[in-house]
Amino acid sequence: MTPADKDMTLETLHESHDCRAASALLSRIGDKWSVLVVMLLTPGPKRFNALKRALGSISQRMLTLTLRNLERDGLVTRTIYPTIPPKVEYALTDLGQSLREPVQALGSWAFENQDQIDRARLAYDQRQA
Amino acid sequence: MTPADKDMTLETLHESHDCRAASALLSRIGDKWSVLVVMLLTPGPKRFNALKRALGSISQRMLTLTLRNLERDGLVTRTIYPTIPPKVEYALTDLGQSLREPVQALGSWAFENQDQIDRARLAYDQRQA
Repeated sequence: MTPADKDMTLETLHESHDCRAASALLSRIGDKWSVLVVMLLTPGPKRFNALKRALGSISQRMLTLTLRNLERDGLVTRTIYPTIPPKVEYALTDLGQSLREPVQALGSWAFENQDQIDRARLAYDQRQA
Repeated sequence: MTPADKDMTLETLHESHDCRAASALLSRIGDKWSVLVVMLLTPGPKRFNALKRALGSISQRMLTLTLRNLERDGLVTRTIYPTIPPKVEYALTDLGQSLREPVQALGSWAFENQDQIDRARLAYDQRQA
């Protein structure tokens, strides 16, 4: 193992630790619907149908799955009120609320740089054509 | 349209603007390999093979595709040096560097809360069993 190889390995080990945690999380909570649900629950608890209405094009099955994953991750609670018909309400946990800030930072970055990215894509596509 | 409906619509419009920008970006740059490449290029430019070695399990095709998407988004530059064999080097643009901070914020959140998420998952799975 040369010194350069060793550096590379150390660097890789160091970087991969944080990187893989970040990328595993991003793959999980970075999916479109999870992000939207976390943002929609920020002002307060919502019922299933209110979420479904606000999300527009989501299927019943996909919203159920998204909420179940968020509940499993400890980001969302599911409360059933014994009314007729039963009322089911979803709310962010403290952990879910704490996710809002980094997600919004990335959202703001996207919002601020969307034009620049669009221009870069256009220029790239023109170079390829 | 009742006042409640109107609130819901306004809220939805307002939220969906930022949310959709955030989620489109997250879907695009939140993919595992893009995040890892951005992190690996943070200390400085790297050659294709150095990236491939550091990423371990990525295929040649997937790394090529990931780099091409990042280049198209204006986050990464690709420089060919006319040596024999040609040397191809990838580097973050200023835009790419600016993405590092929000990505790392989310990475830090993941790192800090990984244990709590793991415990939540375990508890959830036990409740279901």
